[in-house]
Amino acid sequence: MTSSSAPIPVNKIRYNEQGLVPAIAQDYLDGTVLMMAWMNAEALQKTMDTGEVWYWSRSRQELWHKGATSGHLQKVQGLRYDCDSDALLVTVEQIGDVACHTGERSCFHQVEGANGTQVSPPPADTLSQVFNTIADRKQNPQPNSYTNKLFEGGDNKILQKIGEEAVEVVMACKDDEPDEIAGEVADLLYHTLVAIAHHDVDLRAVYRKLQSRR
Amino acid sequence: MTSSSAPIPVNKIRYNEQGLVPAIAQDYLDGTVLMMAWMNAEALQKTMDTGEVWYWSRSRQELWHKGATSGHLQKVQGLRYDCDSDALLVTVEQIGDVACHTGERSCFHQVEGANGTQVSPPPADTLSQVFNTIADRKQNPQPNSYTNKLFEGGDNKILQKIGEEAVEVVMACKDDEPDEIAGEVADLLYHTLVAIAHHDVDLRAVYRKLQSRR
Repeated sequence: MTSSSAPIPVNKIRYNEQGLVPAIAQDYLDGTVLMMAWMNAEALQKTMDTGEVWYWSRSRQELWHKGATSGHLQKVQGLRYDCDSDALLVTVEQIGDVACHTGERSCFHQVEGANGTQVSPPPADTLSQVFNTIADRKQNPQPNSYTNKLFEGGDNKILQKIGEEAVEVVMACKDDEPDEIAGEVADLLYHTLVAIAHHDVDLRAVYRKLQSRR
Repeated sequence: MTSSSAPIPVNKIRYNEQGLVPAIAQDYLDGTVLMMAWMNAEALQKTMDTGEVWYWSRSRQELWHKGATSGHLQKVQGLRYDCDSDALLVTVEQIGDVACHTGERSCFHQVEGANGTQVSPPPADTLSQVFNTIADRKQNPQPNSYTNKLFEGGDNKILQKIGEEAVEVVMACKDDEPDEIAGEVADLLYHTLVAIAHHDVDLRAVYRKLQSRR
């Protein structure tokens, strides 16, 4: 639980006719929606008391301490309810980075593709999506990919680009041109992501550094 | 609808006893959860047919074309269902950046604080959260804030730091030290965010640039 939030009074929440409220679990680093399940008042209270997420299992009709068997606990980072108090949003650190019983990171891992249902990483923030694309190019090089050309050039090529793009950000700021600033910052971020992927550093490690300094 | 996803067969979804399925709407740029509402098979079909989000209003007991009155339409960027086919995740471009009927960006804008319920921006990815903190410091300067010292120094101070941090990223990569790379990249990102905030450029503008190049 973040220090800025106090416990939610469980009687403030509007439960449905089964005494349940939908709870969305969201990753605290990149905003990925990991799962949606249900809580009753007792599960909500236990979630706040323990700092780990509890749901109500509708199939088993019992309280469900998420991850108690698998080890894939969800540590509460924040807890909110919506404008009409009938939905919860739980920000979590997902232990093991696996929320779904299938072993996938998120329960929302399925998309319909041309060849039927396929597994595809769930939506996250833009930077994480770009990073995932870059990391995928490293694993599965594609002909004519600019990213793969950078990887082939190694540190000397990649880091030279970081220097160039940093200078271009500086010049765009000096010119005070908003659209150019946005474009040059996008270039700098992209090449920085290539550099960390080249060194097998996960963007999540960078996000953790940023979180720890806030 | 992204080109990689095909329509979901509406009969694949498991609706509840009222014929409804919860649908989570998520911002396509920063992963923020904007709202949770309900769809029936017809709303889901209309959402796919029109590329704009339709829900079922439980209070009015009618189809609800989100934003038809307010102009705050939700343009569909992606559509998924979860592992047991009883929840939907809709990735959207929120027109006007306001999803909640209260005028707030997200329905999940309430937190319990020491002085009762307060409005607080909903969780997003780490970079956006850091950017929001920086932008807030610009609006509400705080004594002894490092960020405010940078703003006071203006471009010359801020951009000098970008040069320094870029060089430090280069050195950490040359040393191939993962933890140091993550730390230096975090520093570079932070100072870059200060630079764009100084020039009133929103991180979302940068994310849009990155999205348009994917």
